Formats: sequence, C-alpha cells, structure tokens
Amino acid sequence: MPYVIAVYDVGQKRTGKMLKLFRRYLTWVQNSVFEGDLTVSQIKQLQQEAEALMQESDGVVFYQLRDERYTERTALGVDKAERSRFL
Amino acid sequence: MPYVIAVYDVGQKRTGKMLKLFRRYLTWVQNSVFEGDLTVSQIKQLQQEAEALMQESDGVVFYQLRDERYTERTALGVDKAERSRFL
Repeated sequence: MPYVIAVYDVGQKRTGKMLKLFRRYLTWVQNSVFEGDLTVSQIKQLQQEAEALMQESDGVVFYQLRDERYTERTALGVDKAERSRFL
Repeated sequence: MPYVIAVYDVGQKRTGKMLKLFRRYLTWVQNSVFEGDLTVSQIKQLQQEAEALMQESDGVVFYQLRDERYTERTALGVDKAERSRFL
C-alpha cells in the first residue's frame, strides 16, 4: 500500500482545519508533518480536500512511496509521532 | 544516491541554528522540512551535528530512501522549496 509523507505550510487561520483534515487520513509526526499508509484513492481524496481549504499563499507537499518498506525512518531525540504510542 | 526527507521540531532558541545546519546539507522545502540527495556518510554527519545541537524536548525525523526515484513528489498550491527556482 502506498506510504505517504505529507507536509503543509498554510496561513495561521487554516492550521486548525488542516490539522484536523490530515489527522483523519494520516498519523501526526510533528508540527505540520504527517505520515501513513493510504490507498491511491484516499491520497486523491485528501489532496482534493486540502485544495478546497487552501488559499493563495498556502503550500502542501506529498511524498508518495510505493510502500513503507521503501523508506528507512530514523528519529533522533523525542519521537513525537502518535504512532510511537503503539509501537 | 540516498534521498532524504528530514523534519525537525525544536525549541525556539534552536530553530535558527537548525535551519542553518540543515540548509548546509539539504534543500529547504517549507517550515522545518528539508529534502535532498546525501551520501550515507553525509547523513551520519548531519545526524551527529543535529544531535549536538538538540536539547531534551527536541525531535528530528529522517526518512531515507534508496534513491529519489522511489518517491513521487506532488506539490499543491505554492511550492516554496528553494529547488523550484532551479527547475
């Protein structure tokens, strides 16, 4: 299943809505960074929902991998990701 | 060459130093997010330098891919990455 790392940089008025949206699909990592498994259609859905919220100066970047195994994840210091509760 | 996506979440006092450090190795994407090609030894070096700056509550996450081709990058809205100037 595709693995996604997504980051956003949006105006302060929209950070709350973006956080809520991205949390519905992905696991919060830190600040405005998220990761997780999504189907291709979920990725499209999330991108559409994000675009609907975005305004002029906002930017969102998705890194889509074919599978989580394609990345080696290293955390230094405090791993704030919510997933760490379940590992 | 390994491709790295790196994100940090550090106390305000250290954001300037971290930004400067990560910029020496990688391309700034947005906020505290960076990406770029690094050799394995550069990754280790960057991680050591980051750890030297980090304090108790700070966290840094590295996603290391075997090659940039392992990720499909999609930017919505404004792509703030410095690389976009060169594309």
